[in-house]
Amino acid sequence: MTGSLTIVGLGPGTAEWITPAAQAALDAATDIVGYGPYVDRVPEREGLTKHASDNRVEVERASHALRLAAEGRKVAVVSGGDPGVFAMAAAVFEALEAGPAEWRALPITVEPGITAMLAAAAKAGAPLGGDFCAISLSDNLKPWEVVTARLGAALAADFVICLYNPISKARPWQLGKALELAATHRDAATPVLFARAVGRPDENLRVLTLAEAVAAAGTADMATLVMIGASSTRLIAREGGAPYVYTPRSVTKSPCVTSQGRT
Amino acid sequence: MTGSLTIVGLGPGTAEWITPAAQAALDAATDIVGYGPYVDRVPEREGLTKHASDNRVEVERASHALRLAAEGRKVAVVSGGDPGVFAMAAAVFEALEAGPAEWRALPITVEPGITAMLAAAAKAGAPLGGDFCAISLSDNLKPWEVVTARLGAALAADFVICLYNPISKARPWQLGKALELAATHRDAATPVLFARAVGRPDENLRVLTLAEAVAAAGTADMATLVMIGASSTRLIAREGGAPYVYTPRSVTKSPCVTSQGRT
Repeated sequence: MTGSLTIVGLGPGTAEWITPAAQAALDAATDIVGYGPYVDRVPEREGLTKHASDNRVEVERASHALRLAAEGRKVAVVSGGDPGVFAMAAAVFEALEAGPAEWRALPITVEPGITAMLAAAAKAGAPLGGDFCAISLSDNLKPWEVVTARLGAALAADFVICLYNPISKARPWQLGKALELAATHRDAATPVLFARAVGRPDENLRVLTLAEAVAAAGTADMATLVMIGASSTRLIAREGGAPYVYTPRSVTKSPCVTSQGRT
Repeated sequence: MTGSLTIVGLGPGTAEWITPAAQAALDAATDIVGYGPYVDRVPEREGLTKHASDNRVEVERASHALRLAAEGRKVAVVSGGDPGVFAMAAAVFEALEAGPAEWRALPITVEPGITAMLAAAAKAGAPLGGDFCAISLSDNLKPWEVVTARLGAALAADFVICLYNPISKARPWQLGKALELAATHRDAATPVLFARAVGRPDENLRVLTLAEAVAAAGTADMATLVMIGASSTRLIAREGGAPYVYTPRSVTKSPCVTSQGRT
């Protein structure tokens, strides 16, 4: 068996953010497997077969990739951002765990990438300067009560909070609810970042207050990374652009860990 | 004024994980500013001046970089990993906020990088498959009670927890205490990752149980990223290496958000 499988992070969108190691994995592949828009980002070449699939079929896609590798193909499964963050890596290991024992002899590697929150933070300044967390707002794979419990814990403990998968046509209200919950813990003036399509031609970075963000929740989409500042997160005016957003490294006061919030 | 300042993420250590955008920023710089070991990673060349400094002088280093940029130099401030994650970006904005108004006219950009937790996760499998958080265990910049409050909240809400700056000669006991706290919330068999120097020649990845990790806390160092699994994080045996560690994307039960833990 000479097949292999690499799960490759393409970064947020620009080729300038694809690591040389990820590029080498794409160059060595005989087969590219992934969600259509990510597969489209890999140029066609002789000897390369592309297998594009729909969104929301991650485990089937992962099993397909493992079958191809078991047949001797050099497979690259592609994800936007980092494959380990709300992307294909976990789906591949789920499929591996559930699949035939022979798959476990395959060489499987993961090539990390720039995940959306790092790209959004870099464009905004340094909003992740303190402790932070990443939560997927999708309730396709977990109950909404788990999302709100985690959000509540992160708000009470004063983490900066990055929201992945904030909103979609099938999940239109979750982001608004999450921001309303945030508003019961944090000041209305807390900076909130709506970072859309960072690194792509249609990039759009908005720095809002939490109060404005609650009202603007419906203007986000699946390409938006939403970042809620901690209590210490603040702005520095910038000439000719949105203000810098940054979180000081120092914390002087203890977060109040309750589920009641500040009121 | 033609000077500029870019805060560049060098990734965890191998050149294969430096993005082309970060490399371009290094290539365009006239001055490299940073902690000695990171500055050493940038090759010497004609026209390039290197300014290496000691650890723990981040704001002085940032002010120095801003002064150089204000004098017209093209300055790259270098960080390992991602500059926005427990690294130099926040220090630069702290110095900018406290410094002379003219600094605010400087073009300041941040080039993201592969942060340690993404590299460690990639080497291990997909431990960040669910919601996760990143906490610096250093109590140089925040009270230890803030660290434990955040750890407690993250444990109760069942996040995967990434610990940066876990231990140093000046802070020998904090990691042990953190892992003991984790053991009051999570099963003794929960996978814990000690990922040291990922991407460097002396890379060393250890997959332990939480009980083993408590006993082994003293074997970590400042180059180690410690990752504590969620309740669902598990292992898949791998031929010829440490088992894969992965966290399934689905959550079926609600985390119990209390500060008492499971006992």
